[in-house]
Amino acid sequence: MAIPMVEVWRGDRVESRHAGDAVVCDASGAVVAAWGAAEAVIFPRSSCKMVQALPLVESGAADGLGPEQLALACASHQGAAIHTDRVAAWLAALGLDATALRCGAHVPHDAAAAAGLIRGDTAPCQIHNNCSGKHAGFLTLARHLGAGPEYIDLDHPVQRAVRQTFEEVTGEDSPGWAIDGCSAPNFATSLTGLARAMAAFAGADDGSVRGRAMVRLREAMTAHPDLVAGEGRACTGLMRAMGGHVAVKTGAEGVFVAILPEQRLGVALKIADGAGRAAETAIAALLVRLGVLDAAAPGAARWLAPPLTNWRGVQTGHIAPAPGFP
Amino acid sequence: MAIPMVEVWRGDRVESRHAGDAVVCDASGAVVAAWGAAEAVIFPRSSCKMVQALPLVESGAADGLGPEQLALACASHQGAAIHTDRVAAWLAALGLDATALRCGAHVPHDAAAAAGLIRGDTAPCQIHNNCSGKHAGFLTLARHLGAGPEYIDLDHPVQRAVRQTFEEVTGEDSPGWAIDGCSAPNFATSLTGLARAMAAFAGADDGSVRGRAMVRLREAMTAHPDLVAGEGRACTGLMRAMGGHVAVKTGAEGVFVAILPEQRLGVALKIADGAGRAAETAIAALLVRLGVLDAAAPGAARWLAPPLTNWRGVQTGHIAPAPGFP
Repeated sequence: MAIPMVEVWRGDRVESRHAGDAVVCDASGAVVAAWGAAEAVIFPRSSCKMVQALPLVESGAADGLGPEQLALACASHQGAAIHTDRVAAWLAALGLDATALRCGAHVPHDAAAAAGLIRGDTAPCQIHNNCSGKHAGFLTLARHLGAGPEYIDLDHPVQRAVRQTFEEVTGEDSPGWAIDGCSAPNFATSLTGLARAMAAFAGADDGSVRGRAMVRLREAMTAHPDLVAGEGRACTGLMRAMGGHVAVKTGAEGVFVAILPEQRLGVALKIADGAGRAAETAIAALLVRLGVLDAAAPGAARWLAPPLTNWRGVQTGHIAPAPGFP
Repeated sequence: MAIPMVEVWRGDRVESRHAGDAVVCDASGAVVAAWGAAEAVIFPRSSCKMVQALPLVESGAADGLGPEQLALACASHQGAAIHTDRVAAWLAALGLDATALRCGAHVPHDAAAAAGLIRGDTAPCQIHNNCSGKHAGFLTLARHLGAGPEYIDLDHPVQRAVRQTFEEVTGEDSPGWAIDGCSAPNFATSLTGLARAMAAFAGADDGSVRGRAMVRLREAMTAHPDLVAGEGRACTGLMRAMGGHVAVKTGAEGVFVAILPEQRLGVALKIADGAGRAAETAIAALLVRLGVLDAAAPGAARWLAPPLTNWRGVQTGHIAPAPGFP
């Protein structure tokens, strides 16, 4: 049963309430703390992009890629020029262009990029999709494997490798899958399985192929928080506020994960109603509780207890962790 | 305690869940049906705009206004040209312009209008605010009362009249207030109070000043569903699907109300987590249950059980009422 995690205040009253479940695992895969239902089965959505990128790195397909590309493979980016220029260059290096992607096109979340398209009377292309870096990684792996262009099909070698890796790092047979917003398969797991996977990333070292791949991916994320999301976004802001010591990643429908290498801990949470605003505040509160986010650090309050302001700039309320959480 | 009302499915699994409270009152003010906590205290937000417009009409200040302006006074509009042209003309007839408004400016939700502003390198003005019709009504009443320009202040004659009227039609002393997104005061009420107010609108006739005002406002809403919200929006779509027999209105943070004149019933619901997508499906399900929305009517399914499609147009899931609701 999900527990109260986040409150949305207007004036001196709680206007809306969000419940959720959260789990912390250690590097052995054991649950060290849980709130709500640790066994809840969820779709991790984009929060597991670093897992989806593991076959890319472990296979050797990423040997020619740098940390910027690996960060983009793990990203739900804003479609700003810093993201789209790099994805376009990556595709060009493969001899491909946007038409090779299978993620679909959407208007970039970056306001300047979106306005630029309108001014130029240009439709967004698939490179603007927030998942285009992940898909460039899929295409890179497909090329390495000599596999066909429909890399999002469930039985394509790329997705077969993703599924096998996902089940290995979550420690569970996935109980099912569905199609994600970017058309790739998204595999279900228990929340504990997702936390266990993040703890594996946290405890990884260079002693194995998988360990080396996990270290490369988590270090790419913390080295390039601007590429993993973008200006004004929680993933970028929280990673900056923690000085690169912790990797965090959001997923649609209220999912958030964290990788704490120095503590060798992994965190996964899901807001039951799917609200991103609540997932942001809940993960920030958990990171404070775990001692890796200083509530007074520049940028931290924006996620931990964000003020709500209206169109005239008047503060009308705020968002805060629910009493007793975490 | 809020009860399960709406489920968000991805593939063959429920990905997110929304709980809420709902009340149906008859024209005597009695509760005839309830789900969850009928006594829950909520902010009605924009769902009570027809109540906020009552002093405008009852005072005689609206004697020169037609149904289009009254529909806009009750609207959370998209900022399309059909809305902004009419609000601008209304202000001009008062000898005013956008600078008299106190709602603040935001980018219009209508995509064509937003793109037009970007192409013209023009910032949005307060007329684009979705509440600009309500504020034009406030200005009209302020003019009629000979009151000053700061019509959103709690002790301004306009807001004093709104509060008194609000408490009369909800049948409760409001337990508090807060500042709304448009900077006007928003008065708290129990969900039953809000449903009672809607039932008063439903049962109103021409036998009193208040009754005549209520009839004018509800008929303005049902006559102009496109002005109350806009293309693609639930209020507009549901009112069209019900052929003008029922008035409905959404409010921020998951509120929805309905006025059923032929049944002399009023409905109010609030999704506990504030999700608009859930409020839309929940009100549609209640309207089917109450016999005023045909689930097979053109446009009804879009709100009752909307498909979820991704950026390639693939259906990934759907939204539906929770089992047993309503």
